[in-house]
Amino acid sequence: MQKLRFGMVGGGGGFIGNVHRHGALDDDLAVLTAGCFSRDLGKNRACAEKWDVPRCYVSYEEMAEREGQREDGIDFVTIATPNNTHYAIAKSFLERGIHVLSDKPAALNLEQAQELEALAAEKGLLFGVSYTYANYALIRQARNMVEHGEIGKIINIMCEYPQDWVLMTVASGQSVHGSWRFQPEIIGNSLCVADIGTHLEYLVTAATGLELEKVLCAVQTIPEDLPLETNAQMLLRYAGGVPGMMWASQVAAGHECSVSLRIYGDKGSIAWNHDTPMQLRVAKLGRPVQIYTPERDYLYPEAKALTRLPYGHPEGFYEAFANIYRGFIRHILALRQGPAAAEYPYPTIRDGVRGLKFVRACLESSRRGSVWVHL
Amino acid sequence: MQKLRFGMVGGGGGFIGNVHRHGALDDDLAVLTAGCFSRDLGKNRACAEKWDVPRCYVSYEEMAEREGQREDGIDFVTIATPNNTHYAIAKSFLERGIHVLSDKPAALNLEQAQELEALAAEKGLLFGVSYTYANYALIRQARNMVEHGEIGKIINIMCEYPQDWVLMTVASGQSVHGSWRFQPEIIGNSLCVADIGTHLEYLVTAATGLELEKVLCAVQTIPEDLPLETNAQMLLRYAGGVPGMMWASQVAAGHECSVSLRIYGDKGSIAWNHDTPMQLRVAKLGRPVQIYTPERDYLYPEAKALTRLPYGHPEGFYEAFANIYRGFIRHILALRQGPAAAEYPYPTIRDGVRGLKFVRACLESSRRGSVWVHL
Amino acid sequence: MQKLRFGMVGGGGGFIGNVHRHGALDDDLAVLTAGCFSRDLGKNRACAEKWDVPRCYVSYEEMAEREGQREDGIDFVTIATPNNTHYAIAKSFLERGIHVLSDKPAALNLEQAQELEALAAEKGLLFGVSYTYANYALIRQARNMVEHGEIGKIINIMCEYPQDWVLMTVASGQSVHGSWRFQPEIIGNSLCVADIGTHLEYLVTAATGLELEKVLCAVQTIPEDLPLETNAQMLLRYAGGVPGMMWASQVAAGHECSVSLRIYGDKGSIAWNHDTPMQLRVAKLGRPVQIYTPERDYLYPEAKALTRLPYGHPEGFYEAFANIYRGFIRHILALRQGPAAAEYPYPTIRDGVRGLKFVRACLESSRRGSVWVHL
Amino acid sequence: MQKLRFGMVGGGGGFIGNVHRHGALDDDLAVLTAGCFSRDLGKNRACAEKWDVPRCYVSYEEMAEREGQREDGIDFVTIATPNNTHYAIAKSFLERGIHVLSDKPAALNLEQAQELEALAAEKGLLFGVSYTYANYALIRQARNMVEHGEIGKIINIMCEYPQDWVLMTVASGQSVHGSWRFQPEIIGNSLCVADIGTHLEYLVTAATGLELEKVLCAVQTIPEDLPLETNAQMLLRYAGGVPGMMWASQVAAGHECSVSLRIYGDKGSIAWNHDTPMQLRVAKLGRPVQIYTPERDYLYPEAKALTRLPYGHPEGFYEAFANIYRGFIRHILALRQGPAAAEYPYPTIRDGVRGLKFVRACLESSRRGSVWVHL
Repeated sequence: MQKLRFGMVGGGGGFIGNVHRHGALDDDLAVLTAGCFSRDLGKNRACAEKWDVPRCYVSYEEMAEREGQREDGIDFVTIATPNNTHYAIAKSFLERGIHVLSDKPAALNLEQAQELEALAAEKGLLFGVSYTYANYALIRQARNMVEHGEIGKIINIMCEYPQDWVLMTVASGQSVHGSWRFQPEIIGNSLCVADIGTHLEYLVTAATGLELEKVLCAVQTIPEDLPLETNAQMLLRYAGGVPGMMWASQVAAGHECSVSLRIYGDKGSIAWNHDTPMQLRVAKLGRPVQIYTPERDYLYPEAKALTRLPYGHPEGFYEAFANIYRGFIRHILALRQGPAAAEYPYPTIRDGVRGLKFVRACLESSRRGSVWVHL
Repeated sequence: MQKLRFGMVGGGGGFIGNVHRHGALDDDLAVLTAGCFSRDLGKNRACAEKWDVPRCYVSYEEMAEREGQREDGIDFVTIATPNNTHYAIAKSFLERGIHVLSDKPAALNLEQAQELEALAAEKGLLFGVSYTYANYALIRQARNMVEHGEIGKIINIMCEYPQDWVLMTVASGQSVHGSWRFQPEIIGNSLCVADIGTHLEYLVTAATGLELEKVLCAVQTIPEDLPLETNAQMLLRYAGGVPGMMWASQVAAGHECSVSLRIYGDKGSIAWNHDTPMQLRVAKLGRPVQIYTPERDYLYPEAKALTRLPYGHPEGFYEAFANIYRGFIRHILALRQGPAAAEYPYPTIRDGVRGLKFVRACLESSRRGSVWVHL
Repeated sequence: MQKLRFGMVGGGGGFIGNVHRHGALDDDLAVLTAGCFSRDLGKNRACAEKWDVPRCYVSYEEMAEREGQREDGIDFVTIATPNNTHYAIAKSFLERGIHVLSDKPAALNLEQAQELEALAAEKGLLFGVSYTYANYALIRQARNMVEHGEIGKIINIMCEYPQDWVLMTVASGQSVHGSWRFQPEIIGNSLCVADIGTHLEYLVTAATGLELEKVLCAVQTIPEDLPLETNAQMLLRYAGGVPGMMWASQVAAGHECSVSLRIYGDKGSIAWNHDTPMQLRVAKLGRPVQIYTPERDYLYPEAKALTRLPYGHPEGFYEAFANIYRGFIRHILALRQGPAAAEYPYPTIRDGVRGLKFVRACLESSRRGSVWVHL
Repeated sequence: MQKLRFGMVGGGGGFIGNVHRHGALDDDLAVLTAGCFSRDLGKNRACAEKWDVPRCYVSYEEMAEREGQREDGIDFVTIATPNNTHYAIAKSFLERGIHVLSDKPAALNLEQAQELEALAAEKGLLFGVSYTYANYALIRQARNMVEHGEIGKIINIMCEYPQDWVLMTVASGQSVHGSWRFQPEIIGNSLCVADIGTHLEYLVTAATGLELEKVLCAVQTIPEDLPLETNAQMLLRYAGGVPGMMWASQVAAGHECSVSLRIYGDKGSIAWNHDTPMQLRVAKLGRPVQIYTPERDYLYPEAKALTRLPYGHPEGFYEAFANIYRGFIRHILALRQGPAAAEYPYPTIRDGVRGLKFVRACLESSRRGSVWVHL
């Protein structure tokens, strides 16, 4: 089998570029052939050299143009730049007929994201978005259990994502105002909801198949002198009237990336926490609670397939990312045979658009004093 | 030291009467001298005999009257009857100058509770209400840590109380409509919020000192054909604008009495769960998470004093109840020397009144489509 | 039903006397009618008064004699004195025809224990010994599961009991030499094995039905200047050749009374830890691990019966003790109808004798350089 | 910086070859340039193609010879073949001046391993052995804490490695006799001790710096008709007389690769379990238990450096392996500047030799009825 060729824009600084690279390479389905890893020419070249990338470009525009023209040009591009550049970069590559897998969010605002979605559809191109958490093997198991009715009709959904990094940054005496993380022109008009709330929004839909209909939200800016919200609390209403709650916080001491999802049905419940991603807590009504672990034969085949190591060998964040790329790449390969649905689900621009609707609804709800707002 | 004499109304059926008795006797500060344990005369007498109670009455009215007249009459009465009778019974004993410790709720509605509060104040009598969970030793530790600023300024409060008993009842095929638990005329116009939401409302205040200012609530009746709500979700706003969230549910498979409290400050957090009541999770910002356990010398003296056994010996629900009675009885004893504040805090009619305001606000908020309602 | 009358020798100091009293009273099957609670006359009287005990004696000899003569004399006596006095006290009461429930160990050495066993048998009297841990409800569940073959043939047993109190005592600067806990003439020639190793020895037998055939042991005295061993490590061999391991330590920082039992069969395993006594971890081969909790309908009836509160209400050390007394008292009651086996198993002098054989074998094995020694 | 070139022998089947490859590539310090991945020519070529390996050989002898002659020959070779071939392959490459990193065990018996150790020393070559578990970041933290005296003087060591795979294999009805895992001529004269016991032996030394002096062991073959032992239980004695216990089992239902290490000092203890490798339980005497997590600033720099992702992002088995390679490769690089000690410790042939002494001592001890045997 011929491996796909891919390129990367950004990723030369920070850790997330390397996470994307690992993810894309992990299953030996693709090769990193081109890149523009930084606006800093030295960093760009150093990165290309370190990663053995044959074609290194000084701008993404040049990269899109040239790769679009080559016969052996890249099949897809990974975008790992700051939020405010995602849109323009994605557009460039889509216009040259190149599939896109963008770091989350898909764009800085809803209009941009919708434009990208339309453009990808028009061009018949795939557009993945790197929502990570739903790609752990046991979340797939949760989805399969829900679909097979193992916990009955869903009656409630509880999710949260507490972190402590804003408190840590403030306590360290660093000027948070200097960080791009706090600059609305780079990240948009939302910090907490957009950065981590959207992860929860996607995770719930991926794990249950339910889409969010409306949200009632209150956001807080803690400490008060920050420019954007750092804590957000919501009541949720899913399709069919299923209620839920969400909490996202970057000022929650004692938490790291403690994503937690709990799905309650009328015959059982399923719970997962990113602190121990190799455990799924399953409670069938009136039975002892059960702890599912990856790669065991009692899992659904789709869930079992999402680990690479025998049971008992911990996998982590890299492998969850690799599962996104596996789904995305296999979808590209399948498309070559004709129109195809994704064999393994992965987050797409459709999810990215819904995520931005979610952010908009949350901010509007909070601004209006916490009223219900439809997505 | 002379022990106090106490009586009990109700408690001859179910388990809660015996929990009250254990709690009141546990520290050898009181003797059960009188009772009217059931309207069923046979049960009433059997209970008195089993518990070695010398004075057994056929009605609480008779009991209140006679005990009020005796020189060696009871010092306080425990009320362990169904909710709709609490008010009249409490009133009877207060009018005879007898202190009251009532099972929660203090009354069926706010007006009754306020009347009882006023009556107790007028008579100079104590009125305890049996909110249990705040009386675990480690919740006292949490309160002390908050007061000493160990987690800084409180910025968020998360609490929940999921149970599964309604689902279990429905699944068992029992007619839930026959149970008094589902009859508004006995338990009032709220099931979930009144029965378990109020526990959370008190627990937060007991653990933090913060009082709730307003609430935004959505309740659900699951399954739909039940007469009262079984699931409730809220946004909270405490004094000083501190935000919070609450979830109470009787349809949450996989939970027993899984009361959970998390208090977030700008320098740390504290978490406790009733599933493992002998552990307090304390996170100081930037430090490893710590697990506090009871009776250890590193605890505040007030918290250390609330266990009866050396460290490593599990205590449970009985002892949490006993801590209520210890505080209540010591308060009575202190009053004999003149006006006195409670040495150990315990839940009082003031908390009972606030709890009923809370229920009223929740129902109103939900009815009006989830708007903020002040208590 | 007429309640039993019982007396207590010792128990006026420390916490264990009150634990015995709670345990004996918990099910309203007995009344504490007589006692000699301390050699200190003041303490003795204060204790009798505090506990409302009508008959208070200045010596156990007088108590045994008089209670033996009264028509309404005590039915059984609880012994809660230091180890070196158990034998003489037990003997006194047995000789007067009074059943005995003694704090562990039954006697200071094997010969004494065997004499007591013979005497009880000769007199047709019951002799209970207060090994606590096997009386938690979920250990009963474990036993039932083993008996029903749920984990197949037992192939291995792992148990441990680590504590930190000796380290704590040493670190506190207290002279450990002054404590009776370190005086061989009071506690016998073993500290760690006798005090906590025996708990494990009994626990395994109670949970599995298997008896220990031989042991290979190494003991250590840490710190070295203590008079008796504080750490003990063993290989075990049970009936049928089943292997096992045991660790008992009083110098294990980070542990309280962390009794742990794991039973491995060829079709599954069962694990329990006293740190979370309300959870039993059950693994059926090839299935998700399950967490059993008390009072649930899926438990065996004998296990379900050993809790007093509805599921979700934590019970603890007091209730485990009460389960010993419940079994013991019901056995006495059954005997009145003629020869009877215990309805609920409880630890007896037979177990106490085996425990002392175990201590002797451990010390001998360690002294001889860790060789196998038969019990 | 020029990357190292490396080759691989074996690894074309099973999962461990890919684990080695990931580990070696993870830090972009090396490139896989040559390989002989399988004796099956088709598999060999397919693997080379899949992994983009330019030089593919049909035999390891040819590979050693040619790579040894090339100017751009490989710097080191990874050996990922069955146990019985490690010795000959390693010898071939050492003789051509090529560093070796071999899958564990280093050889089939002690004599071979010692010969390899001597040969590597003579040639001035490095020889790594892939003991995985000590290379998790938090084990490095444990080592640093021990060295800095944070838990005082070590007084006891408890370790275990329970798995269930032999029971699973037997239950599946597969003929275990057909598997190479059960063939002494391939894996040597020990199954359980050699395969997983040695992991524990190395882990303890890596985490504490203590070396094992003698062992007392009992092994069992469960089920009885297997050719080699599947369960092993030991008393340990470390340098300075420090006692310990070890349990290794492949017939322990309910466990996966549940490596557990507990180090007890006279001022505290440290515990780690592979089921949750991102948590280190640290108990300072008399203080609350603490849970350390990776990449936090409170860690020692050497421990913090061993994770690649920000705190809260789970790492796993692949990254533990990558840490071995990082230490090994940096050592090779350092050697180029002249004689050098390893900057980061990694397991070497010295550890491999000690491991085989350990296996020999265990088998001898067990055979002689469980007596103490010096390594």
